[in-house]
Amino acid sequence: MPSRTVLPAGVSSASFARALAELRKVVGSEQVITDRDALLPYEKLMLAAQAEEFAPSGAILAATVEEIQGVLAVCNKYRAPLWPISTGRNFGYGGALPATRGQLILDLKRMNRILDVDPVLSTALVEPGVTYQQLHDHIAERNLPLWLDFPGGGPLVGPVGNTLERGTGSTPYADHFAHACGMEVVLADGRILRTGMGSLSGSRAWQAYRYGYGPYLDGLFTQSNFGVVTKLGLWLMPAPASYRTILVQYSEDSALERAVEAIRPLRLAGTIANPCALSNAALALAAYRRRAELYQNGGPTPDELILSAARQHGIEPWNLTFTLYGTPEQIAPNLDIVTRAFEMSGGRVDPDHHDPSQVNELNLDAFRLLDWVGGGGLAWIAPVSAALGADAARQRDIARGILGRHGFDYLAAPTVYGRDLHHVIALVFDHGDPQALPRARMAFRELAAAFLDSGYGLVRTSIDYMTALANAYGETHRTVNHTLKRALDPNGILAPGKSGIRP
Amino acid sequence: MPSRTVLPAGVSSASFARALAELRKVVGSEQVITDRDALLPYEKLMLAAQAEEFAPSGAILAATVEEIQGVLAVCNKYRAPLWPISTGRNFGYGGALPATRGQLILDLKRMNRILDVDPVLSTALVEPGVTYQQLHDHIAERNLPLWLDFPGGGPLVGPVGNTLERGTGSTPYADHFAHACGMEVVLADGRILRTGMGSLSGSRAWQAYRYGYGPYLDGLFTQSNFGVVTKLGLWLMPAPASYRTILVQYSEDSALERAVEAIRPLRLAGTIANPCALSNAALALAAYRRRAELYQNGGPTPDELILSAARQHGIEPWNLTFTLYGTPEQIAPNLDIVTRAFEMSGGRVDPDHHDPSQVNELNLDAFRLLDWVGGGGLAWIAPVSAALGADAARQRDIARGILGRHGFDYLAAPTVYGRDLHHVIALVFDHGDPQALPRARMAFRELAAAFLDSGYGLVRTSIDYMTALANAYGETHRTVNHTLKRALDPNGILAPGKSGIRP
Repeated sequence: MPSRTVLPAGVSSASFARALAELRKVVGSEQVITDRDALLPYEKLMLAAQAEEFAPSGAILAATVEEIQGVLAVCNKYRAPLWPISTGRNFGYGGALPATRGQLILDLKRMNRILDVDPVLSTALVEPGVTYQQLHDHIAERNLPLWLDFPGGGPLVGPVGNTLERGTGSTPYADHFAHACGMEVVLADGRILRTGMGSLSGSRAWQAYRYGYGPYLDGLFTQSNFGVVTKLGLWLMPAPASYRTILVQYSEDSALERAVEAIRPLRLAGTIANPCALSNAALALAAYRRRAELYQNGGPTPDELILSAARQHGIEPWNLTFTLYGTPEQIAPNLDIVTRAFEMSGGRVDPDHHDPSQVNELNLDAFRLLDWVGGGGLAWIAPVSAALGADAARQRDIARGILGRHGFDYLAAPTVYGRDLHHVIALVFDHGDPQALPRARMAFRELAAAFLDSGYGLVRTSIDYMTALANAYGETHRTVNHTLKRALDPNGILAPGKSGIRP
Repeated sequence: MPSRTVLPAGVSSASFARALAELRKVVGSEQVITDRDALLPYEKLMLAAQAEEFAPSGAILAATVEEIQGVLAVCNKYRAPLWPISTGRNFGYGGALPATRGQLILDLKRMNRILDVDPVLSTALVEPGVTYQQLHDHIAERNLPLWLDFPGGGPLVGPVGNTLERGTGSTPYADHFAHACGMEVVLADGRILRTGMGSLSGSRAWQAYRYGYGPYLDGLFTQSNFGVVTKLGLWLMPAPASYRTILVQYSEDSALERAVEAIRPLRLAGTIANPCALSNAALALAAYRRRAELYQNGGPTPDELILSAARQHGIEPWNLTFTLYGTPEQIAPNLDIVTRAFEMSGGRVDPDHHDPSQVNELNLDAFRLLDWVGGGGLAWIAPVSAALGADAARQRDIARGILGRHGFDYLAAPTVYGRDLHHVIALVFDHGDPQALPRARMAFRELAAAFLDSGYGLVRTSIDYMTALANAYGETHRTVNHTLKRALDPNGILAPGKSGIRP
C-alpha cells in the first residue's frame, strides 16, 4: 500500500488491506478507489481549510442497494467509517469530503435512476445520484407540466443530497424536506427501511402521504448519519398557468428592516408563495463585475465604490425578486397588493422582471459570485432567526463588522422563507492565496461564533464547523443524538462527525 | 388496597403501594387517583370495546415539568407503565384510556398555560392541557387577527394532543403537525429536550424555524411513546381579509370519482387552500335526523330513504364545502376557476355557504352524528390513499359492503388533503346495546383488515387496533421503532402498546 494512504481511524494497515479486498469483491475492483490521484476529484475544497485535514481513505462506488448492504457488512466488520455522498457537490459546505480524516467515501452517483415521475400526483421517486439536470431533462422529454425547485448549485447537484441537507430553493417548493415524501434507507445493519407508506404492503401512496403510521421518522435521516438514503420521494410543483416575477428595490441600506417587515405578512398570507431573498448590492454586483475592477487595496471594498458600480447595472442596496404564480386573473390582484405594500415600505417596484431559478429554468448563475475575487474559495454561512427586520439588521451589522475587519466584502441575501429568515452570506476568497485562506478561516469562525452568541443558529454548516455548531445546541440535544446514533449504528461506521454526531 | 385495583402489569401489590406513596410525595396526595369511581371519567369509551380491557391502574395529575420528572423517576424505579394524555379527549380512538390494561394515566390537563401568542409572527406556545376553546378565548380577548384550525372534537380538545396524534382540521393549516414548530419533551430519564431552535441558548426563533441543526426530531414524538411533550409551538393562520365558503354538490353516488379528480388539481395548484371533504348523504343527514325516524328494521338504512330525507335538507349524495380566503379581489378569479372546474365535473356550485370549522368558528357540530343511532358508540376509521378518484371509489365500495353486512350505515367524508386522500368513516353504534357492540367490533376489524389488504393504511387508529395496524407495516418498521424505544426509554415505562410499540 503506498505510503500516502490515509488509513481509516483505528484501522490497521493490514486490516484495511483486507477490508479493501472484501469491498472489491462486493462492488468490483474498479469501483474501489484508493489511488491518491484518482481520489483528487473528491478533494476539491472551496472552504477555508485544507483538504488534507479531511482526506478520505478511499471511495467506493456502489451501484445497488445490495452492494451498499455488502459494503456496510464489511465496514461493520472492520469498523471502517463510511461517508455517503449523493452527487458529492455540497458546494461551499465541504463538497464530497467527510467531516473527519480517514473515512471511506460511499459515492452513490452511479445510483442515478429516475424510478418514477407521476404527472397526475405531481411526484417523483429518485435515487441519490440523480441530478436536477437529469430530472429536468426527463420531464422535458416527456413534456410533463411539472416544475423543479433547485438550489443554488443548480443543474450539477441533486435532489436527494440537497434534501437530506435540508437545502432550499426559490419557488413555493423551496423547503425541500417539507416537499419530500417517502424514503428508502439502508440502515447500518443492512436492513432496508421504507418510511411512511413505503413499508405497507400493496400501498400506492408512498409518494402521496408522508406520515405512515407511528412515529414519523424521515426527519431523523436529514443532516445526520443514521442511515444511507437510497430512494427519495419528491413532490413536484404543477406548472402554473403563468407567472410574473417582480423586482423590488430599496435605495438605502437602512431599508433592510422595512423590507423584511413588508415581506413577512405577504408571505404569511400566501400572497407571495415563494421565498423572498433580498440581495445586497455587492452580491448582486458580483454577477457582473469583479472586485479588482473596482478596488485593489486591502480591506473591504468601500460601499460607495460598490454602489456606484452597482447602479450602472441597475442594482440598488437591496434587491428583492419574487414571483406570482397562477392565471393572469389570479396574479392581477396579488400584484396590486404587493405593489402597494412594497411602495408603502419605500421600495420601487418593477413588475416585469426575470429570475430563472423561480421559474424552473436551470442555470449556473449562482457560481458567478466566485468571480468576485477569483480563486474558488467559498464558504456559506446562513444564520437563522425569526423573520423580523430587527434581526436581519443585527445580523447584517455583525456580518459587515467581522467580514470588514478581515478584509472581506459583505455579500448577502437575507431571505424570508416564512416565519424564518435565513441570512445567507457568501464568504468568497482566493483559496490559492496563502494570506487569504487563514483570514477567511478566522472570519468564518468569528462570524459563526458571533451569530451563535446572539442566539442565531445556522441552517446548516460546513464539514469544518459541524461539531462546534452542534455543541451550541447543548448537552441534552447532543446526548439524544448520540443515543439515537448508538441505537441505529452501534459500531459508529456511518459518517462519524456528521452534524457533530460521533459514535 | 381495594380488590378492584388494577395492578400495573408486572408490578406486585406491595410494590405498587410503595410506588403510589412515592408518587403522592411528588404531586400531592389529591393528584394521585386510584379510587375506581374517581377513575370512571377516564374510562368513558366510545369504541366497540369494553373499557375494562384497558382499565388504568390510576391517574396522576402532574402540574409541572418537575413533577413529571419526579413521576418518571418513580415509574422507572418500579417499572410502572405511564400513559400520558393531554386533555384526554381522543374521541372515537380510545379517549383517555391506555392501549393496554394496567397503566397509570399521566393526566396533563392541569398544565394548561398559554405561554405565548405572538401576533407578529402568528405563533403560539402552549402546554398540553390547553384546549382550543381556551386558546380561542385568549385570542379573542386580546383581539388578535389570528385563526385556529381545530379538529372535529372542536372546543373540547387541545392542540398538543391532537398534533401529537397527527390530527387534522379544516383550514389551510389542516395538517397540524406540519404547522407545529418546536417541542419541549421530557424524556423517560427525566432529561428535557427542546427540539429545533429551543435548545440553542438565546434563540428567539423556537416557534419560527422548525429544523434546528442536525436530525429533525419532532416527528419522533408523534404517534409514539418516546417522551412526554410538555410544550408545543404552533403556527397560527393570519386572519384573512375575507373569505367565501363554497358548496359543491353531486346528485349521483357515482360522481365520487369525478369529484376527487376535479379537486386534486385545484388543491395542488393552491387554488383551493384547505382540505376538501366530500360528505356523503348519510353523514350530512346525521346532523339533522336520526336513523330511527327513517327506518327501524335491521340492516343498513336503504339508500333511497336516506336520499329522500337528505334532499329535504338540501343534501345530495356528495356534498363538498371548501373556502376561498383573501381579499374579494383575490377570491373572485379563484371562484371563477373552481366554479368552472366543478361544473365541468357535474357538480352544482353554491358560492355562498357557511362552514364554521373552515372560518375559525368553534363548534360542536361533529358530535351531532352520534345522534344518528344514539348510545354514544363511535369508532373512526380513515384509510389513506393517493388522492385518486378510483381509490376513493374502491374504499367506498369496501366500506359500504362490510358496514352493510353488519347492519351499519356508511357515514363518510372522503377528504382530499393534498396528494393524499383520507376516507374518513364514522362507525356509529349504540354502545349500550349488547347486540350492536360486538357487531361494531367485528365490522371495524373487517373494515380495517380489508383496507390493509387493499394497500390502504389508516392515518391513525384506536387503542384496540394499534398493534394490528403497526404489524401491517412490516418487520423492519417494527424493529426500528422498537430499537428507538429501547434507546429512549430503556425500562419501557412510557405508554407501552402505543402505535404497537412495546418495550
